[in-house]
Amino acid sequence: MPAEFERHSGCWMLWPERPDTWRAGAKPAQAAFAAVASAIATSEPVTVAVSAGQFINARAQLPRSVRVVELSSNDAWMRDCGPTFVIDGKGRRRGVDWTFNAWGGLGGGLYFPWDRDDEVAQKVLEVEGADRYRTSFVLEGGAIHVDGQGTCLTTEECLLNPNRNPGFTRDDYAEIFRRYLGVTNVLWLSRGIAGDDTHGHVDDLARFVDASTVVTVFEDDFADSNYEPLAENLALLKSMKDQDGNPLRVETLPMPEPVWFDGQRLPASYANFYIANRIVLVPTFNDANDRLALETLTAMFPDRAVIGIACRDLVLGLGTLHCMTQQQPK
Amino acid sequence: MPAEFERHSGCWMLWPERPDTWRAGAKPAQAAFAAVASAIATSEPVTVAVSAGQFINARAQLPRSVRVVELSSNDAWMRDCGPTFVIDGKGRRRGVDWTFNAWGGLGGGLYFPWDRDDEVAQKVLEVEGADRYRTSFVLEGGAIHVDGQGTCLTTEECLLNPNRNPGFTRDDYAEIFRRYLGVTNVLWLSRGIAGDDTHGHVDDLARFVDASTVVTVFEDDFADSNYEPLAENLALLKSMKDQDGNPLRVETLPMPEPVWFDGQRLPASYANFYIANRIVLVPTFNDANDRLALETLTAMFPDRAVIGIACRDLVLGLGTLHCMTQQQPK
Repeated sequence: MPAEFERHSGCWMLWPERPDTWRAGAKPAQAAFAAVASAIATSEPVTVAVSAGQFINARAQLPRSVRVVELSSNDAWMRDCGPTFVIDGKGRRRGVDWTFNAWGGLGGGLYFPWDRDDEVAQKVLEVEGADRYRTSFVLEGGAIHVDGQGTCLTTEECLLNPNRNPGFTRDDYAEIFRRYLGVTNVLWLSRGIAGDDTHGHVDDLARFVDASTVVTVFEDDFADSNYEPLAENLALLKSMKDQDGNPLRVETLPMPEPVWFDGQRLPASYANFYIANRIVLVPTFNDANDRLALETLTAMFPDRAVIGIACRDLVLGLGTLHCMTQQQPK
Repeated sequence: MPAEFERHSGCWMLWPERPDTWRAGAKPAQAAFAAVASAIATSEPVTVAVSAGQFINARAQLPRSVRVVELSSNDAWMRDCGPTFVIDGKGRRRGVDWTFNAWGGLGGGLYFPWDRDDEVAQKVLEVEGADRYRTSFVLEGGAIHVDGQGTCLTTEECLLNPNRNPGFTRDDYAEIFRRYLGVTNVLWLSRGIAGDDTHGHVDDLARFVDASTVVTVFEDDFADSNYEPLAENLALLKSMKDQDGNPLRVETLPMPEPVWFDGQRLPASYANFYIANRIVLVPTFNDANDRLALETLTAMFPDRAVIGIACRDLVLGLGTLHCMTQQQPK
């Protein structure tokens, strides 16, 4: 599996429409989504998948530069239900189609049914004419993050949750990642951020910016529920080594002030950025730390324009830019 | 618009499922359809478009060599609601997206609604990344047939029917065909075959097999209702000239015995063949004339394998091989 910071041939996204996820007819989320798709399309080809009933609406809201294809889903999270693209030993692009159970299936999943989401990866791969590896076990794209050299970051909170693959051990996952992703070195973080209904996805937490550097979110307010888990993860990262036995370079991003809606804390995190070919899109929250987050990432991505995207209307759906996208490597 | 006998980069089809068109859960039609798609896929890439609800079924019934994409419709006639592919002055493949009104709209159309069908061409072109010319007037792909040199065959019965474009004259169509298809020479046949609910589509009637040769169906039974219209069309063809003023070479195909179902005569015609890159698929009807039709076309297509496809279960839906396909030129 190539790293996200390697060259892409495109990016896939899923149009938001589900009324219980997206308020006000999904119109505010769709406007924010269209801005994201438009921005990514300046840097790489974007395909937006949309249900039959919303096709005309999506086509009208998106610029001509974005390809729109009919492809139904249960919600808008291409990172998690879409394919994980890999390059096989002969240089051919293929896709892994993990079983998807809506982040927990009947044991705490976020909605029922999730059958259309579970078909998304297959349908994307059909459109792209790419071969497919279907798995019987459950995984989401946002639960794993690789450096393209053999190292994978993930979290115990998510992968060892019995509502994913009950009985699976760290060794079982190491074997899976070896076979499907070419990963030789699995780095286990502990817990994810507060408000993350996926049970601790790594893509709200820590991200590779190059093959030797991880950026992770850090909370300096002792009273915040994120303080302890993020401090623990930071200490873990500082002790971890890459696939060649070299220590990781570790940088930190701040957290925004907690974002609440209707009594629920939302998973607002600057770590949910998306790395496109020539730009990096970073979620912003009208927060005092937005500027620091953008400056930090600007320094870390010297060859890319780092652009803030207002994500209040997206984080209401409990995910932002990385959750909504799935890169297709060159 | 290139001729069908020119090189294709692929073929698009629409999965049959509509229960009032296709009997017995559409299973017999789907089996026949899968045989057609499989056969064409031996010669050129085939994409089958299918609604969300039938995706898994279609994927299971079709071979791996066929690409299956989610794309909803109101029925299975890609020839008529799909795009007409053209090559522009710079050699780019583009598509014409004619307005589709289910062969007559509120004035005799075959079903309501037809909104999904009318979106099919746009969605195909999105998947293919091809630019689109949308028209405000109505036309179906099966109503026109070109030689790729500037000549178009069509019928008065269909195009001058007031349920398509009321008030349009032959000159209006000549101008449309000039602008959208690069056609300079429109040849008007009169009436289509008995049982054709499209009001006389030319693709059940007369077809170019090369740039100077037309094959047309002929009925030798005086008592059959096809006798007079087909004799009239044959006489017209023999008097017609191509875009350069040269007479057409005209050959004939027989008709099968009339095929009836539930008191309705079905539009069974050998002229509804599909020309793929290396093969020609010809509808057969368990009829004594099947052999003659295949032999006639075998002689006319010396460089292609001419293959009969049993179409009883397809003609129940009132169309066969040409109606179900849409070629995409190289």
